Amino acid sequence: MNNPVIESMLQRKSIRKYEDRMPSDEVIETIVRAGQQAPFAAQVYSILLSRKKKHVFGAPLLFTICVDYHKMKLIMGKRDWSMVTNDLSLLIFGIQDAAMMAENMVIAAESLGLGSVYLGNAPYVADKIAAEYNLPLKVFPLVQLAMGYPAEDAPPRLRYPMDFTLFEDEYPELTDEMIEEAMAMMDQGYMGQDYYKKNNYMIPLKNGRKETFTFDDYGWTEHISRKWGQWFPSVRDLLVQLEKRGFHITSDLDEKE
Amino acid sequence: MNNPVIESMLQRKSIRKYEDRMPSDEVIETIVRAGQQAPFAAQVYSILLSRKKKHVFGAPLLFTICVDYHKMKLIMGKRDWSMVTNDLSLLIFGIQDAAMMAENMVIAAESLGLGSVYLGNAPYVADKIAAEYNLPLKVFPLVQLAMGYPAEDAPPRLRYPMDFTLFEDEYPELTDEMIEEAMAMMDQGYMGQDYYKKNNYMIPLKNGRKETFTFDDYGWTEHISRKWGQWFPSVRDLLVQLEKRGFHITSDLDEKE
Repeated sequence: MNNPVIESMLQRKSIRKYEDRMPSDEVIETIVRAGQQAPFAAQVYSILLSRKKKHVFGAPLLFTICVDYHKMKLIMGKRDWSMVTNDLSLLIFGIQDAAMMAENMVIAAESLGLGSVYLGNAPYVADKIAAEYNLPLKVFPLVQLAMGYPAEDAPPRLRYPMDFTLFEDEYPELTDEMIEEAMAMMDQGYMGQDYYKKNNYMIPLKNGRKETFTFDDYGWTEHISRKWGQWFPSVRDLLVQLEKRGFHITSDLDEKE
Repeated sequence: MNNPVIESMLQRKSIRKYEDRMPSDEVIETIVRAGQQAPFAAQVYSILLSRKKKHVFGAPLLFTICVDYHKMKLIMGKRDWSMVTNDLSLLIFGIQDAAMMAENMVIAAESLGLGSVYLGNAPYVADKIAAEYNLPLKVFPLVQLAMGYPAEDAPPRLRYPMDFTLFEDEYPELTDEMIEEAMAMMDQGYMGQDYYKKNNYMIPLKNGRKETFTFDDYGWTEHISRKWGQWFPSVRDLLVQLEKRGFHITSDLDEKE
């Protein structure tokens, strides 16, 4: 069971090398328009575009996808309403709106022969992005999307087995066998493509941990474990970034390490 | 500039009336498989499916899309890692992963002749959903997606003008003219379809505010203003739901109203 729409999704992979060719205005607008038509809670996003220079991986386009309640506040003001919803709820809806919109852009781009890659670091450098684009309060840079015509090709990468993802009626107890099967599928998928070897990248170990891996046994599950096992232990930096953008999540900023 | 992929996105609209016809296992698996192939930070989601009964709007399928770090913890355990990343960061990445996956499901479903509608209330009833599906800690129900074969048809609904959404190099000052144009486009789009009239729904006014609208002037901007102007003023309920699911965002739970 297949069609061009599903094929476009199944073929999609991140692109980390781009041609030196600028997509036309029409291509860009078609992609953004497809993004806009995504379902929404409240259309609470904006898209910042930069094409003044080459971006990471040589991409001609860099989109910065923002959660945007500034526009909503302006609209509510015109209707004599003020925003009362708490900022964490606003974020949860806003992140969904922005992510669904961005995913439509990704698939639309793929269908037009373009490739893309998500860059997840924006929330942690929100202040720099805000300064660069002169963002008003209540606009929070969520994720960046580099895009252009691919100068590399690779097969799509594997995902977890479906029985590790889709659960009917009840969340099952995940057996050792299921966990190990899911891990093997991901690791063999990435290592079979020499994914980390080609990118020449292993996440460095911190706290005196000694490296024992080589590109022959460093797979996706080790990679992802090193992220969540080492990165962003403190919530403080993120809370500070959110506060600077006008999203107040908690009063205990100072207590956190 | 168009193709079947982009057409599928541009034609998509929420469906609130479904045929009494169960999609085949093959259709369901194709949709979920397309969802899984979405880009990810860490594949930190799970999909709960219920097809034991008819769901809201008569939909035969109800998917509950969860942010899921339980699986990640199990995998990290097998690799001798423990999770150290703060829970707010986990949520921000997890919501994106889950939303991108769900959006692929929506577009794949559309391409196979199915319709869908998002239900955004899951985070506020997370405890009930957790009990129903026996969710382990670190699994948070983010959003639900009802799906089936449509028993209604409507044109897609308008979105903001592109110049209210896509900003190049700098976030512009939004003039009254731009704001009013965006509002008019949305309001005329919804009212032109008798959207709220057909659904026979206006958001009730609280705090003694007197209703002055009819379906002739109640448009999208009034509707959305009533949400953010009245709903979820306190973050407390949401924080409690997150805590119950094992996501600790803040220690100032008791201070919030």
